[in-house]
Amino acid sequence: MRKNVIVGQSGGASAVFNATLAGVYHMADDLQTNVYGMMNGLQGLLEDKIVNLGDYIRNQYDLEVLRNTPGAFLGSCRYTLPDYNEQPEVYNRIFDVLRKHDISSFYYIGGLESLKTLSKLCTYAKLIGCDDIRFIGIPKTIDNDIPLTDHTPGFASAAKYVATSVKELIRDSSIYGRDFVTVVEVMGRDTGWLTAATTLCKGSDCSGPDLIYLPEKVFDPEKALEDIARVRKNKKSVIVCIGEGCKLADGRYLCDVDESNSFTEDASGKRLLTGASRVFARMIHDRFNCRVRAVEFSALQRSACHMASKTDNDEAFTIGENAVKASNLKHTGEIVIINRVSNDPYQIRISVKDIKGVFNESKSVPTEWILDDNSGMTEEFEQYARPLIQGSVVTHYKDGLPLHMPYIIF
Amino acid sequence: MRKNVIVGQSGGASAVFNATLAGVYHMADDLQTNVYGMMNGLQGLLEDKIVNLGDYIRNQYDLEVLRNTPGAFLGSCRYTLPDYNEQPEVYNRIFDVLRKHDISSFYYIGGLESLKTLSKLCTYAKLIGCDDIRFIGIPKTIDNDIPLTDHTPGFASAAKYVATSVKELIRDSSIYGRDFVTVVEVMGRDTGWLTAATTLCKGSDCSGPDLIYLPEKVFDPEKALEDIARVRKNKKSVIVCIGEGCKLADGRYLCDVDESNSFTEDASGKRLLTGASRVFARMIHDRFNCRVRAVEFSALQRSACHMASKTDNDEAFTIGENAVKASNLKHTGEIVIINRVSNDPYQIRISVKDIKGVFNESKSVPTEWILDDNSGMTEEFEQYARPLIQGSVVTHYKDGLPLHMPYIIF
Repeated sequence: MRKNVIVGQSGGASAVFNATLAGVYHMADDLQTNVYGMMNGLQGLLEDKIVNLGDYIRNQYDLEVLRNTPGAFLGSCRYTLPDYNEQPEVYNRIFDVLRKHDISSFYYIGGLESLKTLSKLCTYAKLIGCDDIRFIGIPKTIDNDIPLTDHTPGFASAAKYVATSVKELIRDSSIYGRDFVTVVEVMGRDTGWLTAATTLCKGSDCSGPDLIYLPEKVFDPEKALEDIARVRKNKKSVIVCIGEGCKLADGRYLCDVDESNSFTEDASGKRLLTGASRVFARMIHDRFNCRVRAVEFSALQRSACHMASKTDNDEAFTIGENAVKASNLKHTGEIVIINRVSNDPYQIRISVKDIKGVFNESKSVPTEWILDDNSGMTEEFEQYARPLIQGSVVTHYKDGLPLHMPYIIF
Repeated sequence: MRKNVIVGQSGGASAVFNATLAGVYHMADDLQTNVYGMMNGLQGLLEDKIVNLGDYIRNQYDLEVLRNTPGAFLGSCRYTLPDYNEQPEVYNRIFDVLRKHDISSFYYIGGLESLKTLSKLCTYAKLIGCDDIRFIGIPKTIDNDIPLTDHTPGFASAAKYVATSVKELIRDSSIYGRDFVTVVEVMGRDTGWLTAATTLCKGSDCSGPDLIYLPEKVFDPEKALEDIARVRKNKKSVIVCIGEGCKLADGRYLCDVDESNSFTEDASGKRLLTGASRVFARMIHDRFNCRVRAVEFSALQRSACHMASKTDNDEAFTIGENAVKASNLKHTGEIVIINRVSNDPYQIRISVKDIKGVFNESKSVPTEWILDDNSGMTEEFEQYARPLIQGSVVTHYKDGLPLHMPYIIF
């Protein structure tokens, strides 16, 4: 009889969220395992909303299309598991459902919060002496803020998208040869990895962003305006990239300087940190009385499968496959991670680590990698990030547009 | 001795602005002609800022990279020629520069305003009996608002980009299975061609936008909120696409409902019509107290060479080549246009028409093509627009990002 395993997706989307799902399916299917998917992560599992992935992924072509479909094929959630001594019934319910479907392995693809939730489940499993279900976490985030792993699937595709788009915006903003400041807002609530990635467009054919502001450093409006004044002396079209999570010295988010920014929310109900670029653009306009424009990449940067990094997509797929290998080797309570072996040639090794480690470290951009005058990143960042954005995915087109996997009708 | 011709770019950028420039260069160079470029259009010409394009386009590879470089390689302008009876010295100056460089043909790639400016120059040339310089206009705009031609190079690539991005956003916004309204703002000051193009993502793998609002119809907030209420009854994640140029019944732009939107400007100093999505998102939030998000594509939609339509890029190139052919056949005072021969198979024929015709017609989206309940476009639009977004350009990559032509250092 075939074994049963289950996989879920949790947290915000990335361009390779489904590539990891495809990797899990591919390896598990190869091993003659039934692969169930929980709809909307643990939230769906609690309601026994479960599909058989084999009903949807019928052949290699489906698998390829799934790898390049944005969003979360199984749906996602922002569900935080309560502590088990407070609500044991939730844990009982989860294990009842897992037993009902005779699940031997549980894979959860998610960001930092989702992995923390999975960690609670692992701890509980150990507590009740459950050793016949293995729990494996698979990192995913565009923010690149997950510790233990060299980098996280999802980051590089978003990085490639923002670097490409900034490069295109730089061209757009310079055509009139007139004074102009463009402020580009990039995602990253607590970390500036993605904002830093905009500097990757700097090269022989592009001057790159002139100034970058990462959440890792306090945003001082007065100093930032001095930076602008300095750059404007020698350059007509100025490009500033700013992290959405930049904070003032008093701890407030920059976007909160304008209260009218506070009404927008994520689909999960999480408040959107949107507006930093508008706030800063207005400050620049008020100070210099110059032309300004604010550009937000918004959800585009985490959904742009059409501009995904092949390296990222391949790694996301492989990390999914390796989760299945790990559980087959009787690992549990661990996450799959990427170790970097070398930059040039770029080589990685996939391994696993105790999931509890995600609580112990933080994964901010090292502030010594940010140039003191905010004009860019050091060579260390270049060496870290450049290999990750290499290669383009092969997008399947239909009727002139990228083809996506049809939705699951549940 | 080689003849000399000159080419200029004017108005806002498009993803294929430089493809047309490459087409002009390619054909003129084939005909053993020196190709000069005026920097920043007529504005640069007046200051005798002229380059020899052959110094920059040295081989077929350069030509290919130029075809896929965003922005305006020669720089652009928003220069409106004064009437010649008011400022004859400007006209004298232009013809002095043209004589100085022994120019036999003058090609101007631009949108509606730029072509009108060129038309004045043509009229003046006829007035002074100048018959040794030929003036040819070459249409370019993402707005698709130029009369005489079936469609305009630039539109289809922007259409492909917005349709792809909306398709990706639809995935992103549905992952949590929760109530959510996303309002996407699309460019188009007076016409809704590009907003209409977002409906092209509707298909077997995508439900498409649920509601669209084009500037061709008065925007009635109360009716629009009723539309939203209707869609929300049956659907959790609602996607609304709205043209930046939508106006209220009193003639005000929707974006002007929020005065804080008025400070941003285009690089040319033209006020940006930005903010319609934010204004409408706030109305929706205030009415339904639901999660909302506003997304603006901003300049991305006119700069995204990485997502250009091959059909568009090919046509933009060809129309540039045909401008040179036309002047060689002694045409002048004309614009190059695209005639559609058939939809299926998609076939076009390039010809020329008197440039004065651009004054006489308007090129709005036929309102009968917009479904009465604002839920989409009719089959006529589909047949019109679908062929235009076919095919993907071959992007040259360097260091993981699309390669652009290096800037002209003038």
